[in-house]
Amino acid sequence: MATINPNYDKLAAGYLFPEIAQRTQAFLDAHPGVGVMRLGIGNTTEALPKSVVAGLHEAVDAMAHVDTYRGYADGGEGEPEMREALAKRYAKYGVNLDVEEVFVSDGAKSDSANIQSIFGLDNVVAVQDPAYPVYVDSNVIAGRTGESVEGQYEGIVYMPCTEENGFFPDLPGDKVDLIYICSPNNPTGGVATKEQLKGFVDYAREHQAVIFFDAAYAGYISDPEFPRSIYEVEGAKSCAIELNSFSKDIGFTGVRLGWSVVPMELTVDRAGPGKVNGLWNRRQNTFFNGASNIVQLGALSVFTEIGERECQEMISYYMANAKLIRSTLEDIGLTVFGGQHAPYLWLKTPHGMSSWDFFEKLLSETHVVGTPGSGFGPSGEGFFRLSSFGHREDIEDAVESIRRNLKL
Amino acid sequence: MATINPNYDKLAAGYLFPEIAQRTQAFLDAHPGVGVMRLGIGNTTEALPKSVVAGLHEAVDAMAHVDTYRGYADGGEGEPEMREALAKRYAKYGVNLDVEEVFVSDGAKSDSANIQSIFGLDNVVAVQDPAYPVYVDSNVIAGRTGESVEGQYEGIVYMPCTEENGFFPDLPGDKVDLIYICSPNNPTGGVATKEQLKGFVDYAREHQAVIFFDAAYAGYISDPEFPRSIYEVEGAKSCAIELNSFSKDIGFTGVRLGWSVVPMELTVDRAGPGKVNGLWNRRQNTFFNGASNIVQLGALSVFTEIGERECQEMISYYMANAKLIRSTLEDIGLTVFGGQHAPYLWLKTPHGMSSWDFFEKLLSETHVVGTPGSGFGPSGEGFFRLSSFGHREDIEDAVESIRRNLKL
Repeated sequence: MATINPNYDKLAAGYLFPEIAQRTQAFLDAHPGVGVMRLGIGNTTEALPKSVVAGLHEAVDAMAHVDTYRGYADGGEGEPEMREALAKRYAKYGVNLDVEEVFVSDGAKSDSANIQSIFGLDNVVAVQDPAYPVYVDSNVIAGRTGESVEGQYEGIVYMPCTEENGFFPDLPGDKVDLIYICSPNNPTGGVATKEQLKGFVDYAREHQAVIFFDAAYAGYISDPEFPRSIYEVEGAKSCAIELNSFSKDIGFTGVRLGWSVVPMELTVDRAGPGKVNGLWNRRQNTFFNGASNIVQLGALSVFTEIGERECQEMISYYMANAKLIRSTLEDIGLTVFGGQHAPYLWLKTPHGMSSWDFFEKLLSETHVVGTPGSGFGPSGEGFFRLSSFGHREDIEDAVESIRRNLKL
Repeated sequence: MATINPNYDKLAAGYLFPEIAQRTQAFLDAHPGVGVMRLGIGNTTEALPKSVVAGLHEAVDAMAHVDTYRGYADGGEGEPEMREALAKRYAKYGVNLDVEEVFVSDGAKSDSANIQSIFGLDNVVAVQDPAYPVYVDSNVIAGRTGESVEGQYEGIVYMPCTEENGFFPDLPGDKVDLIYICSPNNPTGGVATKEQLKGFVDYAREHQAVIFFDAAYAGYISDPEFPRSIYEVEGAKSCAIELNSFSKDIGFTGVRLGWSVVPMELTVDRAGPGKVNGLWNRRQNTFFNGASNIVQLGALSVFTEIGERECQEMISYYMANAKLIRSTLEDIGLTVFGGQHAPYLWLKTPHGMSSWDFFEKLLSETHVVGTPGSGFGPSGEGFFRLSSFGHREDIEDAVESIRRNLKL
């Protein structure tokens, strides 16, 4: 008799975003004729940059002709041109990478869910609290946790990110083995300094821990003082895996393209140089066959001068939205964080309301959909995430509705 | 201290195809100026069908305009249009599916590797022997096996597919829980009858086992007597998950698109109707964000009349290659199977040579690269797979070289 993976039953709730979609739909069903403004899921809304569109058409045409057609790549690690282009981009931050250290994927969500699978089940996992739910959920499903008790899974070390510590966690008191860090942060919108990251790199090197550094929003950093890659921090190559994405820089949320970096010099346990890189290579070759070649080849246009400029324009567009949301919320007396080097704003709920209560209040009073902070972890309770992805006019409508209709 | 997943060290060899690539490269390095003809990996070579190219351009243009742009889909299960089109296609075989039972993915490789993860580690896994390596490797990595002993992993039930049983396995003698069946078969090129599949469906229903039915080559069946979907067999919906792909039908090996079907009525253990479907849904929403929307929307053109005809033409092209390879091999006195409802030919090595010895012999004498049967499992020893994917002129060159240069 086949049995199911019992770890799924430990999951405390459905994946956060489908849950929000369901609640929003329920509201729409109960209020025919009413429209909602979605600042919940961080979903891009603007058309792809022209250079990327041209690149994609060119890639489609390449597959349309027998001389330029490509089938399977040699492995699941990506098309050679894309790996090279990514490796070269890191040189801009003073980071030297070999092509073999760069793996192209269908997005940072897949990588951040799958990366745990090359490590043992006995590792103690630490996450920022709040955090992107995939980090925790993938470890629950893999079996690294116990049950969920009062919003926390037994066995996970939660590192609170609070107003007091500026939303960057203190080093873990307990000894931990696998550490997820996201900067610029989803959901708090905070960004880590080099010194803050150095603290974790030093910790990881001392304890032979591994850092999974999610840099999916690095393109949103406008101040070069903040590191865009953890490898800008000395020693990080020996202890950190970096995950990144094209989703938010060029509107590829649905087009799907990301990458990971597993340095050769990363060593843990009895695994010497190259071993962890080799495990990830084997994982990607067994469970995956590479991101779409059309998408990979099409996205190469991003590395041209015009591609970079258009990418910057798209980021600036969303960041102008962020500025508008932030100023409106401040105007009406709310306390808000983030939105300066990240597309997310982290709003303190008024009067100590719970995150889900505020979700319902915001939806019913203003018809704006946001994301309850508690959906990202226990320390997210009492906070609320607003995303700055949206058409300018919709963002304007949303903030206007909040300004007029939210009863504080 | 972080530890690595110890199951990776159980893997007996590198993933098969990179291994072949390395050995081929070594031959090329040792013989400058010599070219090889690749009938090893089943990699498509012909340009995408015109209707698909048009569909992809249209999908790129949709993402280029703000009114038609799409970001994340609502979930990782696929764009609604593609799920609907796939469900409708099944109706042609007399199979009724709800849209919620169809999951779009980036390919059957990912699905066939990942599907085991929603089941418990205590399940006994049975595979056809020989089989596509991903079935076994994904279970080794997940921890459902012991060590590899003489080419077999402890804990896996190997179901021999031999000349004697027509390359379709007898029902397992031991009680097993998860059963991988591939038809048309990779690597043997055999195709299962309805009666053969019914035997396994009845077994699965009696023992509450689950069948993973890999139908990635179903498009290559030309005789309607052979089932293209396991759901053509009565009762299969209560015990079988089907995996399929656009890779070989429209040349999407590198473009990446596939799908899986998890029927609502599939029940196992304490998991009632809808539960397993829900687990796969949760898995896809947590570890995956959907196949590229450009690829999904572009491939909708496959379901038009002209799209279907072009798809059929592509299949016919490769099957003409198969016929050519088969007749040449027979001409020179070799024994060969398959290649009639599948793009693979399964050659019996002459004089009882080992599969890898024949690999080296064929490469050095004829400069043709094939795939050693033993790479697919112990019962593949003494056999050799040739793929019919290739340009006609290259296939002609390859068979001519075999005819002239292979010393028998």
